[in-house]
Amino acid sequence: MRHNRFLGDLLSQLFDRPDKMRGKDDNRSIQELSHALMSTEGDVSGPTLASTIIERYADIEDHEKLEFFNFLNTQLDLDAGKLVETATRYAADQSVSAFRDLSKVSEPKRQELLRRLNQPTGATQKLVSMRCDLIRFVRSNPDLGRTDIDFVHLLRSWFNRGFLVLRQIDWDTPARILDKIVAYEAVHQISDLDDLRRRLFPSDRRCFAFFHPAMPDEPLIFVEVALTSEIPGSIDALLSDFRLPIRAEQASVAAFYSISNCQKGLAGINFGNQLIKQVVAELSSEFPELVTFVTLSPMPGFNRWLADETTNAEHGNSAQAVLAGSASRETLCAMAARYLLFAKRADGLPLDPVSRFHLGNGAQLYEIHANADLSANGNAQSSGVMVNYLYDLGSVESHHDAFATHAEIQASRSVRALATVPLAPAPSST
Amino acid sequence: MRHNRFLGDLLSQLFDRPDKMRGKDDNRSIQELSHALMSTEGDVSGPTLASTIIERYADIEDHEKLEFFNFLNTQLDLDAGKLVETATRYAADQSVSAFRDLSKVSEPKRQELLRRLNQPTGATQKLVSMRCDLIRFVRSNPDLGRTDIDFVHLLRSWFNRGFLVLRQIDWDTPARILDKIVAYEAVHQISDLDDLRRRLFPSDRRCFAFFHPAMPDEPLIFVEVALTSEIPGSIDALLSDFRLPIRAEQASVAAFYSISNCQKGLAGINFGNQLIKQVVAELSSEFPELVTFVTLSPMPGFNRWLADETTNAEHGNSAQAVLAGSASRETLCAMAARYLLFAKRADGLPLDPVSRFHLGNGAQLYEIHANADLSANGNAQSSGVMVNYLYDLGSVESHHDAFATHAEIQASRSVRALATVPLAPAPSST
Amino acid sequence: MRHNRFLGDLLSQLFDRPDKMRGKDDNRSIQELSHALMSTEGDVSGPTLASTIIERYADIEDHEKLEFFNFLNTQLDLDAGKLVETATRYAADQSVSAFRDLSKVSEPKRQELLRRLNQPTGATQKLVSMRCDLIRFVRSNPDLGRTDIDFVHLLRSWFNRGFLVLRQIDWDTPARILDKIVAYEAVHQISDLDDLRRRLFPSDRRCFAFFHPAMPDEPLIFVEVALTSEIPGSIDALLSDFRLPIRAEQASVAAFYSISNCQKGLAGINFGNQLIKQVVAELSSEFPELVTFVTLSPMPGFNRWLADETTNAEHGNSAQAVLAGSASRETLCAMAARYLLFAKRADGLPLDPVSRFHLGNGAQLYEIHANADLSANGNAQSSGVMVNYLYDLGSVESHHDAFATHAEIQASRSVRALATVPLAPAPSST
Amino acid sequence: MRHNRFLGDLLSQLFDRPDKMRGKDDNRSIQELSHALMSTEGDVSGPTLASTIIERYADIEDHEKLEFFNFLNTQLDLDAGKLVETATRYAADQSVSAFRDLSKVSEPKRQELLRRLNQPTGATQKLVSMRCDLIRFVRSNPDLGRTDIDFVHLLRSWFNRGFLVLRQIDWDTPARILDKIVAYEAVHQISDLDDLRRRLFPSDRRCFAFFHPAMPDEPLIFVEVALTSEIPGSIDALLSDFRLPIRAEQASVAAFYSISNCQKGLAGINFGNQLIKQVVAELSSEFPELVTFVTLSPMPGFNRWLADETTNAEHGNSAQAVLAGSASRETLCAMAARYLLFAKRADGLPLDPVSRFHLGNGAQLYEIHANADLSANGNAQSSGVMVNYLYDLGSVESHHDAFATHAEIQASRSVRALATVPLAPAPSST
Repeated sequence: MRHNRFLGDLLSQLFDRPDKMRGKDDNRSIQELSHALMSTEGDVSGPTLASTIIERYADIEDHEKLEFFNFLNTQLDLDAGKLVETATRYAADQSVSAFRDLSKVSEPKRQELLRRLNQPTGATQKLVSMRCDLIRFVRSNPDLGRTDIDFVHLLRSWFNRGFLVLRQIDWDTPARILDKIVAYEAVHQISDLDDLRRRLFPSDRRCFAFFHPAMPDEPLIFVEVALTSEIPGSIDALLSDFRLPIRAEQASVAAFYSISNCQKGLAGINFGNQLIKQVVAELSSEFPELVTFVTLSPMPGFNRWLADETTNAEHGNSAQAVLAGSASRETLCAMAARYLLFAKRADGLPLDPVSRFHLGNGAQLYEIHANADLSANGNAQSSGVMVNYLYDLGSVESHHDAFATHAEIQASRSVRALATVPLAPAPSST
Repeated sequence: MRHNRFLGDLLSQLFDRPDKMRGKDDNRSIQELSHALMSTEGDVSGPTLASTIIERYADIEDHEKLEFFNFLNTQLDLDAGKLVETATRYAADQSVSAFRDLSKVSEPKRQELLRRLNQPTGATQKLVSMRCDLIRFVRSNPDLGRTDIDFVHLLRSWFNRGFLVLRQIDWDTPARILDKIVAYEAVHQISDLDDLRRRLFPSDRRCFAFFHPAMPDEPLIFVEVALTSEIPGSIDALLSDFRLPIRAEQASVAAFYSISNCQKGLAGINFGNQLIKQVVAELSSEFPELVTFVTLSPMPGFNRWLADETTNAEHGNSAQAVLAGSASRETLCAMAARYLLFAKRADGLPLDPVSRFHLGNGAQLYEIHANADLSANGNAQSSGVMVNYLYDLGSVESHHDAFATHAEIQASRSVRALATVPLAPAPSST
Repeated sequence: MRHNRFLGDLLSQLFDRPDKMRGKDDNRSIQELSHALMSTEGDVSGPTLASTIIERYADIEDHEKLEFFNFLNTQLDLDAGKLVETATRYAADQSVSAFRDLSKVSEPKRQELLRRLNQPTGATQKLVSMRCDLIRFVRSNPDLGRTDIDFVHLLRSWFNRGFLVLRQIDWDTPARILDKIVAYEAVHQISDLDDLRRRLFPSDRRCFAFFHPAMPDEPLIFVEVALTSEIPGSIDALLSDFRLPIRAEQASVAAFYSISNCQKGLAGINFGNQLIKQVVAELSSEFPELVTFVTLSPMPGFNRWLADETTNAEHGNSAQAVLAGSASRETLCAMAARYLLFAKRADGLPLDPVSRFHLGNGAQLYEIHANADLSANGNAQSSGVMVNYLYDLGSVESHHDAFATHAEIQASRSVRALATVPLAPAPSST
Repeated sequence: MRHNRFLGDLLSQLFDRPDKMRGKDDNRSIQELSHALMSTEGDVSGPTLASTIIERYADIEDHEKLEFFNFLNTQLDLDAGKLVETATRYAADQSVSAFRDLSKVSEPKRQELLRRLNQPTGATQKLVSMRCDLIRFVRSNPDLGRTDIDFVHLLRSWFNRGFLVLRQIDWDTPARILDKIVAYEAVHQISDLDDLRRRLFPSDRRCFAFFHPAMPDEPLIFVEVALTSEIPGSIDALLSDFRLPIRAEQASVAAFYSISNCQKGLAGINFGNQLIKQVVAELSSEFPELVTFVTLSPMPGFNRWLADETTNAEHGNSAQAVLAGSASRETLCAMAARYLLFAKRADGLPLDPVSRFHLGNGAQLYEIHANADLSANGNAQSSGVMVNYLYDLGSVESHHDAFATHAEIQASRSVRALATVPLAPAPSST
């Protein structure tokens, strides 16, 4: 394995590039500037124009931003009439020139604008932020969804797996990056750097993140891993200040206990699947003793579902008991198993979003634990229950296939057994 | 200016990523694998499938490659009928859902295939090589031009300026990269590393290249610069083994004497314009004494044009004299000026490709030099004449605009004067 | 300025060196191992023996360590008899061979042992720690001072300025290093990383440290700098959470407000003088607008001195008033000026250690500020008074010379004036 | 294994340090400057004074350099009288203060001067060059040997194993370093970088060097290694342009075929022993299949010895035949075995310097090959014979011990057998 030093070195300069071509005082409107960027002026002065637009965007108010997005959405849309015309021509004559004409009109002009905006230093990150705004505006301006489709299309192409870099996050990582990890942790909150030290420093803890070369200060997604000797059944025990760390070499289990997406502007682009697989590969190679890769996951929709089930003929009484905090541990787990196996959305996929994610990745429902997350949030969302999903690399592909094709849920025998425990029905309302 | 060390470090691992998910023995055909990569199987096993396809491609013969490209061209084309249908619907109803449907069919499926292929380590470079093959096949299979349009579209998006890194090439550069510079130099040949040392090592020489993070071993384009005290008028003097280097701080002129594109697979994507401007910016910032930025450029179409002009009423005789090597220095320069100012293609742009490039960048024709390149190649192509194009940052934009809009050529007074020198007409054929 | 990337890269491997030559199970005593290391066995198995000794040392109890130091002190001392003999011979005959014999016996054997111990990875740091122990033992075993002289001699040679690296500490620094800065800050306490962020992050703050290549995780000394528009007169204002940072380019003053030595094991080796000068040079070069380099320094011996002066005929009453907290600001400053200018040790040098340090570096006593450090410590040590020492590079050398030769103290006119303010004498004891 | 990125980064700045404290115009003589550097002036202006001295030294003529060394040798010698006096006092009273006094006079003042010279950027390398001069002068001024002893003492302490960095040299190494490898190769000449590519590039070749952080552009020593499937018996075959490289993983033998010291100024400081052992450790760890570590070494004193043996009663005739090129392969090898086993210096150690080096490291004489080096040099020095020394890590220590203590030579059975082959005596001179 050749160590590519040159690349490291070369990239370290990516963001040192002084912006010598800064936007001059240009008092055209952001719309005029956008047109200029797509004209011949943009051919030669593209980076300057792009800088000016990006700076201008940063300075304007929300209503002007909305105006700008409306401009993208309508003025820089594709010309459907022309598209019909050229597509019709291409349907008749599949010549190269007909295809060239077609390909010129089959894409909204705003895509080319976005590509041309991505010229100055740091522009990629600005475009990702721009999409954050856009997502916000779409809520009350659903028509902007058309522009959002183009943002997603382009960002997905640019944040392609081939361009991402997996990076271990540890105590040798610059504090600037660690601050981001603290801020972006979405599952089990981290209060500050000193709290983060407890997550990263011990010998049996790991953290990995994906980065993109054009946004080196910004993790895209990260996962926290505990190396343990047994499949963990409680996040509280896992994160306890009083536990004794083991040596990484002694571990047989890698438990993924927190996965956080960092960039709202990249919503809809799924990095999690590939992050988990890459981390499994990295850890297996460094620690050949690791044989089991599981998650310790929350069940965020459990209590909401329970609330809907209180009148269910078969297990309504148990649902009430769980919500009231008076259910036995067995009942708790049995209800959780029913939730995970049988609660479905209209499209037939599991109701639980975390479950959809892991099962969609080809993982298997493996074990259910009561009293596993006794934090306020853990109690409120899922009555303290947590789940292990098992990533068995040998069967990930066939599991994924069965899930993707038939929405078939893979579960261990013990989880299946839990779901068949007879439960107290809802009291008949006489 | 903050030095981004973390990025450098993080990127150094981009290519160390061991390919732990190598293509297993999979005996499906490359076409079947491509379909699989775009199906749900690709969602979870994308990197493995992509690796397998890339390895398979590397192993197959030309006729199988051609078959694969034909598959892309026809099987993975867009469905024009469906496109007409959804575009018509969108023309009538510009709803988000209509747009979503449209955007799903407005792009040939091969684009998604190429994006999905770009998942394993080093895939980007493999796709660039794939396009080298494609360009070759297009010659005798012009229909494949459709697929080529999609390759260019995608590569242009991925090799966007915002993702490129400018890097100085000097004697601290790894030999592996220097080997590439030797191999790719297209203008004034470099015989080996010891020859390259003469180009890179002296205190008054510089070389800069663009790189892409996903292809760190491969320069995309590079430019060689001489720092001088006067505008140079001879490449032979510039590269002479006997000249005395000056200190970089003493130079007032930066002469760009060689620009080479390195990647045939990126043909049609223009990096030159931005490279020159970035290097001008870098050099100005490091050496504030530099005031003049010029090229010392070949004139590759000159002799070919002369051969066509031998019967021209006004200057046929001079054309003959130049080709015969018997013209005076003045006649030589006058003919060169006429060539550069008046010889045009059907579209009204200059006949000379180097001239089109620099004028298109907003440069100005500045000076013409006889006996400037006495190499075999220099004599055969342009009778030893070379040209300086001046990059005056203050007027680059307006020049470009005039050229792009009206094909107007900017030239210095002295070049214009040369073009009006009266010349000997062709002998009347009595 | 050529960027030495190769070095960076090469050094990054210094500490990755896996210790493949670990100390085998060797049950000889640490004394026997030491003899072996200096014998022919050490020629070939030096690194292994050294590792074994270093590990053994880490495991033993204090009384065994003391025994080991006594062994160094007596068994590995020089042979004074032999030294007299060879020195006498050399005095008579200054031949090379006489000198060689002399140089073999003129150095205690323990120096060679220490050099030979410094072979395995990380040994340098272990030897520095060893000296921490030694310093502790010397207190109750003053005879060990002989061994300490040899430790200092060797460490001073190894931590020579030519081997040190100046490094800016900022928010891109690895957290592992930042933890050390928090721990080692000796002047104005930092509570944790979040507190450190307030010191390092603002645009008008800088921190620099010296490192040694063989101890890359360990700063040797660091200085914290505030870039300001005026000479600061209060540490509380300087560190206030509510102040508004300025842009570094706007600053005209660089104020060194905290200097901390990090390595107890390097006590007696002065890095401060050179650190300050190097940082002045770095900052001047980055910010040409900086014209004034001062410290904002504590006066740690002030209150102790005041306590001794309460019966002084001339200013006893004022001393009492200061200690009682009832002195006017003018009296406070006048007493501080007297302390700094006139309070001397037996050797004629200033009583105040901070003053000795800066004046010894060639700085000048510049201004005195009351109510400048109102922390518990600041009040207890110096009644809240702080001092600016001015580093004027033009006169540093002559000032140092006058101080080193004649103990002459350089002070500004205003400080001198303060010292002549008439003060209330001690009440006559009738 | 934690990757120490911070160190790499920090060190990369070691040599970027701009010399802001350059030697001003100082017209004192180099001797006066030296005195100043050791006085109080040196305390504060040390780096400037040191720079001035180093620049001055670079500018002066040989006779002035000689004068400077004579100054070091006599004026900055130790004061033998004072040394006798303080040593006598210490012999009587082993107090700390007596020891302190002694340690102040037991070292020549020139050592402190050299330490103080080592303050500016790049000084270490300048001091190493200074010693190159010194070695030259010692030849005709043997008295300077005293000063040389002090240079060696100090350099040995500074180039201690704990401070060295092992670095693989390959095609990713900066060309600047590769140039040095070409220049310093001392055993089997390399003509230029393209020749070096043949040594470094193939998959079955390795090269490793030691560096010192303060001289990052200068390798100290390097070794070239061939990974092979059999113990090699010919350098010509090993370096042949026509051989087929194997994959490194297939190799069972690592053959060290060239070791070159790079710094004449470090003569007398042995890095070879530790380099070989470190490289053995590195290679074993990367390629567990490697089981045999041998050299393929020259025998530089063979022909010279043969010339002395032509009249030897037992094998004079054979010696003549070898020199005449008429000996059989068996005779050739038999004479080589006698040379290696029995030809000794006055001190009982082997006559052959390469043999002394490897046997001194604990290696074993393993095999002898005729026609192994047919280069002009190989024929002239050793009639084309080469030797394998075997490094068997298990017995290196005991072999070294036997060699160091009793000059006992370890040799394989086959080499011993060769030495007993009966040979033709010298013709009796009647």
